Amino acid sequence: MVKNSFEPISGFSTPRFAGIPTFMRLPHILMDDPDSTEVDIGLVGVPFDGGTTNRPGARHGPRQLRDWSTMIRRIHPSSGIDPFILCRCADLGDVSTNPANLDDTLDRIAKFYRALRNKTIAPLSAGGDHLISLPILRGIAPPESIGLVQFDSHTDLFDDYFGGSKYTHGTPFRRAIEEGLLDPKKVVQVGIRGTLYDGKDIEWGRSVGVRIIEIDELMDRGHASVISEVHQIIGNYPVYISFDIDFVDPAFAPGTGTPEIGGPNTYTAQKLVQGLRGLNIVGADLVEVSPPLDPTGTTAWVGASMMFELLCVLAENVGKNRLKD
Amino acid sequence: MVKNSFEPISGFSTPRFAGIPTFMRLPHILMDDPDSTEVDIGLVGVPFDGGTTNRPGARHGPRQLRDWSTMIRRIHPSSGIDPFILCRCADLGDVSTNPANLDDTLDRIAKFYRALRNKTIAPLSAGGDHLISLPILRGIAPPESIGLVQFDSHTDLFDDYFGGSKYTHGTPFRRAIEEGLLDPKKVVQVGIRGTLYDGKDIEWGRSVGVRIIEIDELMDRGHASVISEVHQIIGNYPVYISFDIDFVDPAFAPGTGTPEIGGPNTYTAQKLVQGLRGLNIVGADLVEVSPPLDPTGTTAWVGASMMFELLCVLAENVGKNRLKD
Amino acid sequence: MVKNSFEPISGFSTPRFAGIPTFMRLPHILMDDPDSTEVDIGLVGVPFDGGTTNRPGARHGPRQLRDWSTMIRRIHPSSGIDPFILCRCADLGDVSTNPANLDDTLDRIAKFYRALRNKTIAPLSAGGDHLISLPILRGIAPPESIGLVQFDSHTDLFDDYFGGSKYTHGTPFRRAIEEGLLDPKKVVQVGIRGTLYDGKDIEWGRSVGVRIIEIDELMDRGHASVISEVHQIIGNYPVYISFDIDFVDPAFAPGTGTPEIGGPNTYTAQKLVQGLRGLNIVGADLVEVSPPLDPTGTTAWVGASMMFELLCVLAENVGKNRLKD
Amino acid sequence: MVKNSFEPISGFSTPRFAGIPTFMRLPHILMDDPDSTEVDIGLVGVPFDGGTTNRPGARHGPRQLRDWSTMIRRIHPSSGIDPFILCRCADLGDVSTNPANLDDTLDRIAKFYRALRNKTIAPLSAGGDHLISLPILRGIAPPESIGLVQFDSHTDLFDDYFGGSKYTHGTPFRRAIEEGLLDPKKVVQVGIRGTLYDGKDIEWGRSVGVRIIEIDELMDRGHASVISEVHQIIGNYPVYISFDIDFVDPAFAPGTGTPEIGGPNTYTAQKLVQGLRGLNIVGADLVEVSPPLDPTGTTAWVGASMMFELLCVLAENVGKNRLKD
Amino acid sequence: MVKNSFEPISGFSTPRFAGIPTFMRLPHILMDDPDSTEVDIGLVGVPFDGGTTNRPGARHGPRQLRDWSTMIRRIHPSSGIDPFILCRCADLGDVSTNPANLDDTLDRIAKFYRALRNKTIAPLSAGGDHLISLPILRGIAPPESIGLVQFDSHTDLFDDYFGGSKYTHGTPFRRAIEEGLLDPKKVVQVGIRGTLYDGKDIEWGRSVGVRIIEIDELMDRGHASVISEVHQIIGNYPVYISFDIDFVDPAFAPGTGTPEIGGPNTYTAQKLVQGLRGLNIVGADLVEVSPPLDPTGTTAWVGASMMFELLCVLAENVGKNRLKD
Amino acid sequence: MVKNSFEPISGFSTPRFAGIPTFMRLPHILMDDPDSTEVDIGLVGVPFDGGTTNRPGARHGPRQLRDWSTMIRRIHPSSGIDPFILCRCADLGDVSTNPANLDDTLDRIAKFYRALRNKTIAPLSAGGDHLISLPILRGIAPPESIGLVQFDSHTDLFDDYFGGSKYTHGTPFRRAIEEGLLDPKKVVQVGIRGTLYDGKDIEWGRSVGVRIIEIDELMDRGHASVISEVHQIIGNYPVYISFDIDFVDPAFAPGTGTPEIGGPNTYTAQKLVQGLRGLNIVGADLVEVSPPLDPTGTTAWVGASMMFELLCVLAENVGKNRLKD
Repeated sequence: MVKNSFEPISGFSTPRFAGIPTFMRLPHILMDDPDSTEVDIGLVGVPFDGGTTNRPGARHGPRQLRDWSTMIRRIHPSSGIDPFILCRCADLGDVSTNPANLDDTLDRIAKFYRALRNKTIAPLSAGGDHLISLPILRGIAPPESIGLVQFDSHTDLFDDYFGGSKYTHGTPFRRAIEEGLLDPKKVVQVGIRGTLYDGKDIEWGRSVGVRIIEIDELMDRGHASVISEVHQIIGNYPVYISFDIDFVDPAFAPGTGTPEIGGPNTYTAQKLVQGLRGLNIVGADLVEVSPPLDPTGTTAWVGASMMFELLCVLAENVGKNRLKD
Repeated sequence: MVKNSFEPISGFSTPRFAGIPTFMRLPHILMDDPDSTEVDIGLVGVPFDGGTTNRPGARHGPRQLRDWSTMIRRIHPSSGIDPFILCRCADLGDVSTNPANLDDTLDRIAKFYRALRNKTIAPLSAGGDHLISLPILRGIAPPESIGLVQFDSHTDLFDDYFGGSKYTHGTPFRRAIEEGLLDPKKVVQVGIRGTLYDGKDIEWGRSVGVRIIEIDELMDRGHASVISEVHQIIGNYPVYISFDIDFVDPAFAPGTGTPEIGGPNTYTAQKLVQGLRGLNIVGADLVEVSPPLDPTGTTAWVGASMMFELLCVLAENVGKNRLKD
Repeated sequence: MVKNSFEPISGFSTPRFAGIPTFMRLPHILMDDPDSTEVDIGLVGVPFDGGTTNRPGARHGPRQLRDWSTMIRRIHPSSGIDPFILCRCADLGDVSTNPANLDDTLDRIAKFYRALRNKTIAPLSAGGDHLISLPILRGIAPPESIGLVQFDSHTDLFDDYFGGSKYTHGTPFRRAIEEGLLDPKKVVQVGIRGTLYDGKDIEWGRSVGVRIIEIDELMDRGHASVISEVHQIIGNYPVYISFDIDFVDPAFAPGTGTPEIGGPNTYTAQKLVQGLRGLNIVGADLVEVSPPLDPTGTTAWVGASMMFELLCVLAENVGKNRLKD
Repeated sequence: MVKNSFEPISGFSTPRFAGIPTFMRLPHILMDDPDSTEVDIGLVGVPFDGGTTNRPGARHGPRQLRDWSTMIRRIHPSSGIDPFILCRCADLGDVSTNPANLDDTLDRIAKFYRALRNKTIAPLSAGGDHLISLPILRGIAPPESIGLVQFDSHTDLFDDYFGGSKYTHGTPFRRAIEEGLLDPKKVVQVGIRGTLYDGKDIEWGRSVGVRIIEIDELMDRGHASVISEVHQIIGNYPVYISFDIDFVDPAFAPGTGTPEIGGPNTYTAQKLVQGLRGLNIVGADLVEVSPPLDPTGTTAWVGASMMFELLCVLAENVGKNRLKD
Repeated sequence: MVKNSFEPISGFSTPRFAGIPTFMRLPHILMDDPDSTEVDIGLVGVPFDGGTTNRPGARHGPRQLRDWSTMIRRIHPSSGIDPFILCRCADLGDVSTNPANLDDTLDRIAKFYRALRNKTIAPLSAGGDHLISLPILRGIAPPESIGLVQFDSHTDLFDDYFGGSKYTHGTPFRRAIEEGLLDPKKVVQVGIRGTLYDGKDIEWGRSVGVRIIEIDELMDRGHASVISEVHQIIGNYPVYISFDIDFVDPAFAPGTGTPEIGGPNTYTAQKLVQGLRGLNIVGADLVEVSPPLDPTGTTAWVGASMMFELLCVLAENVGKNRLKD
Repeated sequence: MVKNSFEPISGFSTPRFAGIPTFMRLPHILMDDPDSTEVDIGLVGVPFDGGTTNRPGARHGPRQLRDWSTMIRRIHPSSGIDPFILCRCADLGDVSTNPANLDDTLDRIAKFYRALRNKTIAPLSAGGDHLISLPILRGIAPPESIGLVQFDSHTDLFDDYFGGSKYTHGTPFRRAIEEGLLDPKKVVQVGIRGTLYDGKDIEWGRSVGVRIIEIDELMDRGHASVISEVHQIIGNYPVYISFDIDFVDPAFAPGTGTPEIGGPNTYTAQKLVQGLRGLNIVGADLVEVSPPLDPTGTTAWVGASMMFELLCVLAENVGKNRLKD
């Protein structure tokens, strides 16, 4: 049982539109607050979109996701998981990014997540564009390499853009594999689709052992079959979950920089994440929600709801490990 | 055959964007007009959202639903039903609500619907938030209790909110069962989903006999199987149909106060309502369309289209009963 | 000099789109936190629109105003006032309202502000609809009556609505005068316009001594002349400032429930509030920003900017009085 | 005194968002209803934009203007005019237009307005694009020619478009002068601005005696001086008022097909129309509100408010003449 | 292999948001440019919505589709087709339409497409409303009649509207069959749904041999079965593909004048068009995208993506035929 | 007289919504096209917002400005200037920027503008954020330093952000003065307002001789007086004009990253630019239009209209100098 102070505010006492919006109405605890050592799972915003090659705006993601996350209640309707019983959860605020300097920002993010790892806080992060997953992995993975389950319409395995730019939101997992943060044989990508530049990202990924499940395969096999393969590949390996909101069809999540039509609906997305129960999940992120492209908030609501799905499977694993300690 | 004067204006003669917007371009007849006694089905707006615990705006629903309903033509493409042949339909205007007084408004609504029942007019209503179903049932049900088929993502079976508020859009069917307006054994709820406060609404509902079909069950069994169970439960019992627009996934109907992701598409919604043919339907409502949250009108168009689906199954039953008289 | 901990976060260190949004990036201090006793000026949200007779949504005002207020820097460009030097300012969070019960909410608000007064915290509030000014005055005025400078397009001096409803956003100042909270001879209303129901609000106001400056007079005389009359009327009397966002022309502030065309621009609004320097201001509010009607945030930005204007003139007076203590 | 049945519904009894939206909540009376003979002023929608050379959508104007006009109360705040006391006003519905046939539509409109004239009903019309003013004038002017006061950013005096198209929203007043419906020496155009194709519209207009007051002149002289010249030119001549919403600056009225920046604010627009008191006004229209380009309704609200301004000066003249009869 | 000059600009060299937007970043070649004789496939805009009986705006379709098409890369992810390798593709600009004259515009369009046929350029067109398919067929079909695969929620087989208007977006294929441009026994319509005026369009279509596959049949059989029937019906006959964006459910494509709920998702739409491989396709169009009704661009993105699907199957056929020459 | 080929397409022949959108419908000429040597004034897009410290999106400015600029006709209504008669104008496309690398982009821009200067093409540029003015000046100024008239609500004279970032949209003119590109005594800034971080930008600017005219001074003196001082300061010095769209009040131009309320209207903005006639203008830019923040296009329309104002005064000067050659 966790202390009351790590409980979210109930919508029965204070209306959900009221109050300063923290992630899921959790307490806001700064990393230099002594209480932070008690935190099991830290919800963190990473407001940065400097890796975006196309339409920006994901820097505003954390704030809009916090706003909509106040509509989340506390118990998962289908698994019955109450993450706030299983773990001490808190909103750790945003990493302080530098919108005018990409390299500086990558350092700041990695340092923040290294501090989390040092306090054995498992992170659930809200982007920001997909480049943020790289410094997060730099913070939490070393010295081991870990696995990855990535829900996305793009592989993000490109080598570079615009004549040599190595750090964009199209390259993070190429870099993470090259740097040994990820074991490519423990990387599964689900939902890949959209027109191709040249197909070299997929080619490279497959050549190093990444399992890429394109949309036709997902649609033909269904979520249950795909999830069972994910379990087979990952096994007990520590694994990170990265959920790019553009995995979901743009009818459901229009507010993102590079949408691709013909994608799965949110029910499938929920079933896929629910299917990750039992994996040894060490952290997760939800990225690429771009509020300026999302005037009605539809996308942020999908994002906040998927963050809760991620929190449930993360909390179950973290809680289990805590009991072992 | 009904009199010509109860016919909707055709889009072949007057463009659908022209003219003062009544529901489905029907004549506007006030309740104190002697012609009202000839009406079989009354389309009524209930512009009230004082029961909303979260995001308001449903008070503007009737007007926006009328606006979009002028795009409806007259024959159902799949069943071939022409409701305007089967019944004399009219737009009876809006109930005059009091946005600054909840209790006063509940009285006004109940009184309006009692008058309808006294003229044996079957109501098809446009909300307003879901609390309006309670005073509607108070108007049309007594002295009998009736059944309910509810399409919704929430049970609306809570006991109270905010330290004792018994009348909100989260409580109408708890009240209606307690007041004997509904027979809980003849209540079916379809589509329930979304995170839980504490699960006590579902627990209570099941304890009194309500059949709650959550989203996973609907998705797994499909609409045909669910509808067949609905017929088994309801049989020939007089039944009211309540369609909360948040039953539909927010990609299809974003403009509502409390959307829940992972819901059915509109095709499933249509099939479910079409499947109600043969039930002894005595009235229906469509609630929770919130125009300020629906800038493109997408939701209102779904709402108006579902009102036509409801009208077809209602008119078939009302028309049949009329012939018996 | 105030403690560092009451300083807003600078946009030079943390980008303005980052971080959990408190009012003007001030620290969030709860009323039961011992630090609250050190606060000179409390910024408070009152998320309630249950008094709205027309288009709702102002319950979402505090959150959207907080969001945009993070774009405010710290020094007034024209007066040079730095309110954070003059006073210890903090975000005290939102009053916990009950959207389903108007009377209960009026009590909760009054109690909250009574507590503020007991700690000699001067309030700068963000609504909410204009009805909230009544319980705020109930909290801070008694036992004295105080004065009021109201910027508005409506007098809000009506007696009742809908057959007897005494508490709506069209009646707060009638009630406040009747209850002795305001001395009508120390009440000035500026900017009144819009079509009239019957003119009885203006008639009553003038009969009890309220000075009502309609739009034609404001436009003809200009802001300087009007402000000089305000000083003449108010003198040294303790005075509350209430700024309804619909004072400003809807081109500048479209996101409000009852806009009236033909209003002043924001430059005039700024000059008018700047002109209040020297008055004995004891509190202020900014009301009727309705985010669902404000998709681009334009109105919230005007609202947050005007809150800073109000904060500057309030802080100058509060700071001066503090020095005297 | 007019019969009660021509009174608008009060917002004190029925909230302004409730009910089927007629213009200013007036009764809806069809032209073939015998009551129509009692009508003094008919509010008419003309949902047609087939003359639009650029961005369409004005066909939806009447419906959106009706919607927003329900926010109008009954008395003018500055003149004190209550048009519903002075004249029997009614909503006569929309002219039935043919969006696929321009010529057919011009005939239908002219015929509708001829019928109005035959019943001595003075029209206040809502467009539609500016081409509708031509068939309206064909309906109400002959056999006399009448005068025109036009508020607009364009002269609409072009000869043709696209290689010979004589009937577009850029040509109505050229045609009306050529057809003898307007006496060019009694035509005043105010607010003309925007980049020029070739300047031949202005040249032709001046050559036949039209008084064209461009924006610089209006800004330099102010509304009072311009209005006084209008009175001098028009005198007692029967005159029609045509108000193109693009007269107003697009900050105030963005939802129109051909906005031009650098225009007057709505306060100036109100003062100009108020200044028409005393003219022998025989009808008026408000055109070019395009709802698809007006997502927040700002423009429709300006349009509905200006229709009330037009109604007041029209009703004063019509009421005066009625008394003479 | 085609010349480099017919290649699209890569998003790796120039960001996709940069540059003047031509269709899929192809070179812009005017029809009077000598290079036009080398073009195999011409992408053409037809900015006309004068046939629209309901909500306009499709005249702006070509520009918005061009804008979004710059997000398309070059290779189809599932078939591997690179249309720019197979054929010389170019953006031929827009047909110069006359928004104020329907007949004139039909002539201009037919003439433009006759010129294309004379240069053996296969057209891929972007509407405009569905009426544009008629003059396109007039340009490219004679003297033979050809087949049609139409994805749509409406048959567009009506005889006339508004008392005799023969040319609207509800009538093009009735006219095309009557004129012998289409062989009705080689016409397949997929996705038909929505309420009916009187059902005479479907009745007439079936009486002349059109195969109409309504939504229930599509949903029950699935795309593979339907496509196989399409191949059986069309065989080797030259065939034109017409894709009305309202075929897709409005959750996916809200920005169109006459949406109908209960439609297929974009994945199904993609599979259906991909299934056309092997047909003898001579041209295609995508119509009814209405930008003013599509504020977030969602619909244009679906439209541009479907244009790429159409381009792939068209290019495969055109390329094959070119090799034969 | 210029060649016909440099003429814009007329809206009388091709509707303004038709065709591929180049700036003001001018021919698109690439810099490596031999025709480029004939160009007098080049309209250039610089799609880059990597210097933005707050809300991004200005990278999309050039495309949206091109789109709206097709509504511009050819002659200035008040000065009578026809810039296309005076100079050969062309759309030179966009600079190819690198969104993932700020330094690389600054180089690319400077190189592009150096090439322009080498061909004696005067640039009229569309941003992009305000940082782009720095590399533009690096391209066109050396070896001389030139003057600057800047319309803006911010000085953009800060030293650095976020702990040392020297290149942001808040620093370009500090850098330009330090690098000797601008002579600070020939720099005038008009419209400065908004809350202050610390006031050091203004302090530094004044210390080196920049003339900063804050909003109160502009409002008090009026545009004529300010412009006369500008002429006095600049004299015959070669001068660059930089127009930040946030100079204009956000009611008129909401779609920008850092709006400040209380600004001038567009009429004042037009008068100020018109007042620059007679200066020795060598280039101009319009920056900070952010389309994702501008859903209705209002801001882009102001931007395109102001670009035409800038073009007129630039063309008059360039044309005059050309005659001298």
